[in-house]
Amino acid sequence: MENFNFYNPVKILFGKGKTSELSTLIPANAKVLMTYGGGSIKKNGVYEQVIQQLKPFQVVEFGGIEPNPRYETCMKAVALVKQHDIDFLLAVGGGSVLDGTKFIAAASKYAHGDPWDILSKHVLIQDAVSLGAVLTLPATGSEMNGGAVITKEETQEKLAFVSPLVMPKFSILDPVFTFSLPRHQVANGIVDAFVHVMEQYLTYPVNSPVQDRFAESLLITLIEEGNLAMQQTTPVYENRANLMWAATMALNGIIGAGVKSDWATHTIGHELTAFHGLDHAVTLAIVLPGLLRQVKEKRHEKLSQFAYRVWNIRELDSKKACEMAIDKTEAFFRSLGMLTKLHEHTIHEDTIDKIILRFGQRNMKSVGNQQDISLVEVKMILKSQL
Amino acid sequence: MENFNFYNPVKILFGKGKTSELSTLIPANAKVLMTYGGGSIKKNGVYEQVIQQLKPFQVVEFGGIEPNPRYETCMKAVALVKQHDIDFLLAVGGGSVLDGTKFIAAASKYAHGDPWDILSKHVLIQDAVSLGAVLTLPATGSEMNGGAVITKEETQEKLAFVSPLVMPKFSILDPVFTFSLPRHQVANGIVDAFVHVMEQYLTYPVNSPVQDRFAESLLITLIEEGNLAMQQTTPVYENRANLMWAATMALNGIIGAGVKSDWATHTIGHELTAFHGLDHAVTLAIVLPGLLRQVKEKRHEKLSQFAYRVWNIRELDSKKACEMAIDKTEAFFRSLGMLTKLHEHTIHEDTIDKIILRFGQRNMKSVGNQQDISLVEVKMILKSQL
Repeated sequence: MENFNFYNPVKILFGKGKTSELSTLIPANAKVLMTYGGGSIKKNGVYEQVIQQLKPFQVVEFGGIEPNPRYETCMKAVALVKQHDIDFLLAVGGGSVLDGTKFIAAASKYAHGDPWDILSKHVLIQDAVSLGAVLTLPATGSEMNGGAVITKEETQEKLAFVSPLVMPKFSILDPVFTFSLPRHQVANGIVDAFVHVMEQYLTYPVNSPVQDRFAESLLITLIEEGNLAMQQTTPVYENRANLMWAATMALNGIIGAGVKSDWATHTIGHELTAFHGLDHAVTLAIVLPGLLRQVKEKRHEKLSQFAYRVWNIRELDSKKACEMAIDKTEAFFRSLGMLTKLHEHTIHEDTIDKIILRFGQRNMKSVGNQQDISLVEVKMILKSQL
Repeated sequence: MENFNFYNPVKILFGKGKTSELSTLIPANAKVLMTYGGGSIKKNGVYEQVIQQLKPFQVVEFGGIEPNPRYETCMKAVALVKQHDIDFLLAVGGGSVLDGTKFIAAASKYAHGDPWDILSKHVLIQDAVSLGAVLTLPATGSEMNGGAVITKEETQEKLAFVSPLVMPKFSILDPVFTFSLPRHQVANGIVDAFVHVMEQYLTYPVNSPVQDRFAESLLITLIEEGNLAMQQTTPVYENRANLMWAATMALNGIIGAGVKSDWATHTIGHELTAFHGLDHAVTLAIVLPGLLRQVKEKRHEKLSQFAYRVWNIRELDSKKACEMAIDKTEAFFRSLGMLTKLHEHTIHEDTIDKIILRFGQRNMKSVGNQQDISLVEVKMILKSQL
């Protein structure tokens, strides 16, 4: 195991009806900016439950944070924060609303020029407005970490930043709030969480049995509960609860502490969203199988562990077992309704060229924290998924 | 899964050499009370490393916190805290030093009479001195939770309290610091962590696949790494690191969130320590096998899951599989050098009567959070381990 620091002070309130405790979690006399997305919370009753709890506070609303939240949109909220002296942000929505709100929290206190520098130049933030969250879509893990990904419309860039200062003070996770999600968003969440685990697991062994088995626990649970979710014609509370908790645990730092992480699938996938507006999870479902086939030799040890422990493959030839595990992973994504080939999204070779060009312009020689995937390999990964 | 709240803001610094960051973790200008145990830290180099880091601070030392830390001892430290206006406690040691220091933290700010009431009357504390920890013995999980167990010499009572206010601000976990532990203390730590997991796992199913698999991950790791530790004639860093992290994860709230916990083994075991001074872990190794045999029918579902998933038992008759799993668990404890029968500690039936009498005097009708073990059954559990 490698040395690590771990710190996660997010308070989680999990379960049916937990929104009834919301008003006790926000500081007294806070001026609250309530952020949300496209308005689905106004159709499924979440909005009413939250507004009821916000009665003791001064509240300004900011709706319209889009999937892959945009810098341009967030900056409008930053203006509101300044105009109304907001001192608490309440994000009500999925990962995009949370990520956008984290950026709003940081940008509102940023005094060194254009807040885009937080993303593009990795300027460390020194302060942020406090925030809390009511989660409606389990997927990104943003409810229990300090990370956010923001897209700049103008330049078609999608970039991430991380700071403990934007960890939510609390997150309310009520599985009932996921009942009204369309099927494809449930599937997106499952794939997103699955790939988050893989990014922290499928690299190189460092003798970390606790972290490895925790990661495998989440993968197996996502497969089992994911399959159940697809079979259920009406949502089942326990299934949604298990998916929700697995997605949160997938990216709260626990399984990544002391191991070698990757994030190459995300780095490549972000470009597919940036250029073509694909759902984040869809890009991951495209890239991961191609990436695993590309690294199957150098990452053979962890990949065969994945094959035997997660997919329960009996094949004794470990190379064959690895190939079977990758095929099963891609088949699992497809069973959730994901189209894992680029042509199925009418994306062709010219996009691959654009992505490689852009990585080169950013002076990147490789992708991933292990720097074991060259740009030539990125090209092969994407071509293999054409 | 049941509804739950989860909050764990303890900052963990894990790995070789991490004590070099200690001085940055303590608030500037803090007056520090450094607490420790019997003085082993003065023989293994830990004391010097810590003192070096404490140079920027005013420091008062308080050594001599004993295993099963005593109220009487802790109250001497409370006097020092008040005398020197101490505003930060640094615990350097194992679970006993940490637990003692947590009680010192709470008792120093307790203004409603005798601080023993925090334990005996469950009076909720409103304030506590901040504390941090340098862990030298992985076992209790105290380094990443808000619980503590204190013994009153005068009345031979051993009682627990829990408060988020006594969670360490940080804990430094350097596996190298465990190298000088005597073999029986390493074994104690393994059993303690193992039973902590069982207390949160081996009850009744609530459809919690993430929590169940995490618990099983820890149990399997403790068995594997525990066996390795016993085989190694000189300590191996990776083995000690894996044991240390497993012990911390066993009782930081993660595996217990949303499931039905027990703690009956601890409640019974504490009395064996209170009356006979047995090591905490030794009492658990005695009680758990007897308890599992007693509840094997009512808790059949989780017990058979334990048999098949943790012990990998192939027996198809699930009743037989459960019995085999219990036998394997007791054999595992014995392989670590634990004596699991009461007569091996010259404890006889009269002690059982004293324990039942005391539980009765406390108006207890049953033990355990599930209230599924009557006092008659407690007697049978202990008799079965005579």
